[in-house]
Amino acid sequence: SVNPDLASERQTASFSVEKLTALLDGGTEQTQIRRAVVEAIESDPVFSRENQYFQTQNERYEAAVRKAVHLQKKMHEMGWTENGPEYKYIYRALSGDVAFLLHRVFMRSISVLGSDKQIAKWIPLATQHKLIGSYAQTELGHGTYLQGLETTAVFDTATQEFILNTPKISAMKWWPGDMGRSATHTVVFAQLYVHGKCYGIHPFIVQIRSLQDHSLCPGVTAGDIGPKMNFEHIDNGYLLLKNVRVPRENMLSKFCEVRPDGTYVRQGSQKINYFTMTTVRISLISDEVLTPLMKACTIAIRYSVVRRQSKLKPGEQEAKILDYQTQQEKLLPQLAAAYAFHFINDYLQELFNRGYREIQRKNFDMLPELHALSSGFKAVITQHSTAGVEICLRACGGHGYSLLSGLPSLYTKILASCIYEGENTILLLQTARFLIKCFMAASAGQPVPPSVTYLAAVKHSKCPAKNKLDFLSPDIYTEAYQHVAVRLISSTAAKLQDLIQSGVKKHDAWNQCTVQLVQAAKAHCHYIAVKNFVETVEKLETKAGIQKIMKHLCDLFALHGIFSNTGAFLHDGYTSAAQMDMVTASYLDLLAVIRKDAVPLVDAFDFTDKSLNSALGSYDGHAYQRLYEWAQKSPTNQMSPAYERYLKPLLHNTLSKL
Amino acid sequence: SVNPDLASERQTASFSVEKLTALLDGGTEQTQIRRAVVEAIESDPVFSRENQYFQTQNERYEAAVRKAVHLQKKMHEMGWTENGPEYKYIYRALSGDVAFLLHRVFMRSISVLGSDKQIAKWIPLATQHKLIGSYAQTELGHGTYLQGLETTAVFDTATQEFILNTPKISAMKWWPGDMGRSATHTVVFAQLYVHGKCYGIHPFIVQIRSLQDHSLCPGVTAGDIGPKMNFEHIDNGYLLLKNVRVPRENMLSKFCEVRPDGTYVRQGSQKINYFTMTTVRISLISDEVLTPLMKACTIAIRYSVVRRQSKLKPGEQEAKILDYQTQQEKLLPQLAAAYAFHFINDYLQELFNRGYREIQRKNFDMLPELHALSSGFKAVITQHSTAGVEICLRACGGHGYSLLSGLPSLYTKILASCIYEGENTILLLQTARFLIKCFMAASAGQPVPPSVTYLAAVKHSKCPAKNKLDFLSPDIYTEAYQHVAVRLISSTAAKLQDLIQSGVKKHDAWNQCTVQLVQAAKAHCHYIAVKNFVETVEKLETKAGIQKIMKHLCDLFALHGIFSNTGAFLHDGYTSAAQMDMVTASYLDLLAVIRKDAVPLVDAFDFTDKSLNSALGSYDGHAYQRLYEWAQKSPTNQMSPAYERYLKPLLHNTLSKL
Repeated sequence: SVNPDLASERQTASFSVEKLTALLDGGTEQTQIRRAVVEAIESDPVFSRENQYFQTQNERYEAAVRKAVHLQKKMHEMGWTENGPEYKYIYRALSGDVAFLLHRVFMRSISVLGSDKQIAKWIPLATQHKLIGSYAQTELGHGTYLQGLETTAVFDTATQEFILNTPKISAMKWWPGDMGRSATHTVVFAQLYVHGKCYGIHPFIVQIRSLQDHSLCPGVTAGDIGPKMNFEHIDNGYLLLKNVRVPRENMLSKFCEVRPDGTYVRQGSQKINYFTMTTVRISLISDEVLTPLMKACTIAIRYSVVRRQSKLKPGEQEAKILDYQTQQEKLLPQLAAAYAFHFINDYLQELFNRGYREIQRKNFDMLPELHALSSGFKAVITQHSTAGVEICLRACGGHGYSLLSGLPSLYTKILASCIYEGENTILLLQTARFLIKCFMAASAGQPVPPSVTYLAAVKHSKCPAKNKLDFLSPDIYTEAYQHVAVRLISSTAAKLQDLIQSGVKKHDAWNQCTVQLVQAAKAHCHYIAVKNFVETVEKLETKAGIQKIMKHLCDLFALHGIFSNTGAFLHDGYTSAAQMDMVTASYLDLLAVIRKDAVPLVDAFDFTDKSLNSALGSYDGHAYQRLYEWAQKSPTNQMSPAYERYLKPLLHNTLSKL
Repeated sequence: SVNPDLASERQTASFSVEKLTALLDGGTEQTQIRRAVVEAIESDPVFSRENQYFQTQNERYEAAVRKAVHLQKKMHEMGWTENGPEYKYIYRALSGDVAFLLHRVFMRSISVLGSDKQIAKWIPLATQHKLIGSYAQTELGHGTYLQGLETTAVFDTATQEFILNTPKISAMKWWPGDMGRSATHTVVFAQLYVHGKCYGIHPFIVQIRSLQDHSLCPGVTAGDIGPKMNFEHIDNGYLLLKNVRVPRENMLSKFCEVRPDGTYVRQGSQKINYFTMTTVRISLISDEVLTPLMKACTIAIRYSVVRRQSKLKPGEQEAKILDYQTQQEKLLPQLAAAYAFHFINDYLQELFNRGYREIQRKNFDMLPELHALSSGFKAVITQHSTAGVEICLRACGGHGYSLLSGLPSLYTKILASCIYEGENTILLLQTARFLIKCFMAASAGQPVPPSVTYLAAVKHSKCPAKNKLDFLSPDIYTEAYQHVAVRLISSTAAKLQDLIQSGVKKHDAWNQCTVQLVQAAKAHCHYIAVKNFVETVEKLETKAGIQKIMKHLCDLFALHGIFSNTGAFLHDGYTSAAQMDMVTASYLDLLAVIRKDAVPLVDAFDFTDKSLNSALGSYDGHAYQRLYEWAQKSPTNQMSPAYERYLKPLLHNTLSKL
């Protein structure tokens, strides 16, 4: 039985939820496959996340290892393979709560960076789990700036070995997943030295634990880096190496090799490898960023129609909190963003597939654009989505703060996505560097990649909107976004040039422009996201009400962005104050329109109760009942030694009756 | 030995750190008292927080109870009393990591709401810890809107008792601290019924656990609500009451009484009571909001001068990350805000002391203004500071994400301040209601309270600044803030009136304006905070360089606010685009100026290493060493059963040598 306050929300849906789910999945067949995977995983008690919020870091780790081992068996049983259509749904179905993810990165590194001989030796061993791999790049003192890594690998011609050392505390490997307690092997990135000459960073396969008894190998110190905001299930580790020797054959040598006599040979093009690094940033968006945002929206919106608080109209019963404009203004833009980012993710995936085909034909022309887009969108989507999850959490008041709501874990997990795989500010500056370059080229009449041709086009200098309805016209708002992006990019380029012409050194000038460069890069991505949402809506079938509701969400996404950044649009008078008031009016009107379909719009994400793992957000809307039931299972409801030890003596002058 | 990268930052301080510390403390004597308290607490191993990041919720609770019990002894030993000058520093010195805080709220409730007879009976019992009290107001389904509480207390004339019930699951008391496991008594807020008539919410003292063996009393179901984002040390609880009877004398009856025959009598003025509720919002700012923000700034800024990453100039060593403009732009505005909020807190404290004196003279005129200011600033300061702590956390990259940095705990704790003691959006709307009322009065030429007289004054319609240096003039930016506040309040008042005049019902019109009302309330508080910072700087002694650096921080606080909300200042042309470019230029210039004193500015907060409890932020700057040492103590570095259970069987086809 569904809570009537929630049930009533579903009766008035303006569109077919099932059809929208299929659209999000990419077709009804995909929906079926996904649901079958979810069903198989969730019905298996080994994969249960039931007690997750009560577990210690040690218990979480043990459960994740158990699940990883069981998953091998499950895949075999179910006939799922790494190349099968089910594969991509497994991780989502597990909510990422599984170990040995770095084992896969270990394998991919060898596949991409290793010679054919190395692949032939190591991949079968890894596939059969005759070893457990990790990937050791980041150091205690060094992250994004790879050239700064301090671990060394010195070639010893006499023994035909590399001698690996982490010579200082800041050189210690720090963070690699699966390395703290599980891994037997890892790929270590180190500065290669041959005959006293440094050749820069190279990857080496290093055994760190015995295959007999799992004890640390000689010269190896390793362990777990301890508690984190989330990822308790992962044994992120540290690694110290002291004169650890590996054979010459352990340097991954697809692109570079050290010959027995110490000759260093570089071979082939590494460009495809850069492309691989770039695709990782895109591939994390779906599982690590969109899914948490969509879950948070589902929980917060469902809760906001079963929670009643205060009265909207005197004499009536207390109102659903989603009926308050302020609550709508918190949640509905996050919902719109979730859809916008889903569609931009589709766009990026397609672009990268195209890029991959070109690169296989040895055409590397698309690389700079792909790098700029993947960096910028990784940063913008993770940042926006993290803020969105936090807003959802806070919008649920005290109950959002309980781990049992599921929201704190979603927040603490998605937050990490702003940091890993390239810190966001650094990524945005890489996008900005590309934009400045393209802007200069476009200004000089040279050709530029497709996503930035708009930098060359001549545009209106004033927004043509005449009333609030005009701001529901995609042309109007898309052009406004474009105008802002061009303005921010061009004005920052001008500032940069002015500084350099006034005698400031290039690197200083760059540093003095970075705050504005970050703004320019964000504006570019925001523009592309809006434009892509508009184009997606245009292509939708007009049936089943889906196009109409998606148009509303697209409008909301665009107008929310303007409403939240009015200065950028007002600055040079492109948008007038009167027009900004129209934006505000249209934006607030839209909230009330979308509010009606809010629950169906989150239902379409099709999360099961088990995957949400939230006392607040279940499909049946019985939030209070569930909170109470779950709380009773908490270990904090077992007897505490505190009573006998402290409370009883404190209350020793007990009065039998006060 | 201090890390040389940190030591060098201190050598160039432009002011006396010790004198700034004294200024923050309110005099050198206060500094001495504070340091003595901190020293006494930190040298006592019972109060240690050393293993805090490794402990389970159960362990945290037990430690907090142990500390609370030990604190009684300690206070006695040290000769500290609740009215002594040391008292206010104890909680800060403990970093709030102590139980029985609600016991104090229990006592305060009785003092404020109880009759003299009730006070005489209960306060001595509570003072001697012959019982442990709690305070049960919030329900599973009801928070800020007190009228909606569902717990009932029905008077039974026959037995002269109240019969208490939580008739539905949503009526269950939920969240009260110290109630889950510790409390023997609590003050329950319930709807009073006499002879079938409801008299609204009243407070009742209810015993919930036996004083003999701590078992639950008949009709009482209670327990712990389980895991939360923070506050693991507090046993926030739930409470179900089923026909629980308390004697007539247990209704707190300073203001209302039920006579033996059931006659309901209201006596005296409750206004002083509203004042008490209002002061709680102000009293939490210092310990629960400012301290965490200042700690986060200390950690992030110290770390940002010992962390080196990438190169600013080719050929040089890697740069301190605080030398990057983007890092300065993240951290320094948070530092400026910490100072701004410290000074506004002083202002509010003073105002409330004055208000208290007036109220004791039965003059309640200041109440509406005090209510509006306490609501607005509670919301604005908690919101801004929570965002600030999050920025500090993210600015430390991966290491900020480790619990050992101390930043995650600061974040998860300060976040709660946005929700408790009045959810922020609701509070801002209360401030807005006051502002709209005052604006209407001022427009009609009626007198208004001092903090809003500016609503009546006639002002420039254009900002008079002519170059970027003009924006370092407090008159210029204070007036800009004032202008924006007036514009947002007046335009929202106009929208509200228009809607009502066009036939929209009053409550609907209000709801349709709430997003803008929230903006208006924030603008008002922001203006007052800037104005107060300016006035504080003017009053500072010009010696010791303190006034100069405070002036820089004040400028930064003001310009950061403009830079982050350009639209509000550009909207009606008060500030032109050219002027906004000047703001940006001045703002970015200031970052580089303040960066030089960043470390001395956080040193002045005078946090000991133990109170920071951060591997990243220690006074000596040896962040990497400490991270490594602390990580080794983590329970995740003990043997895991996962090896024997899962890894060994997985690796069963062990190859002795690969």
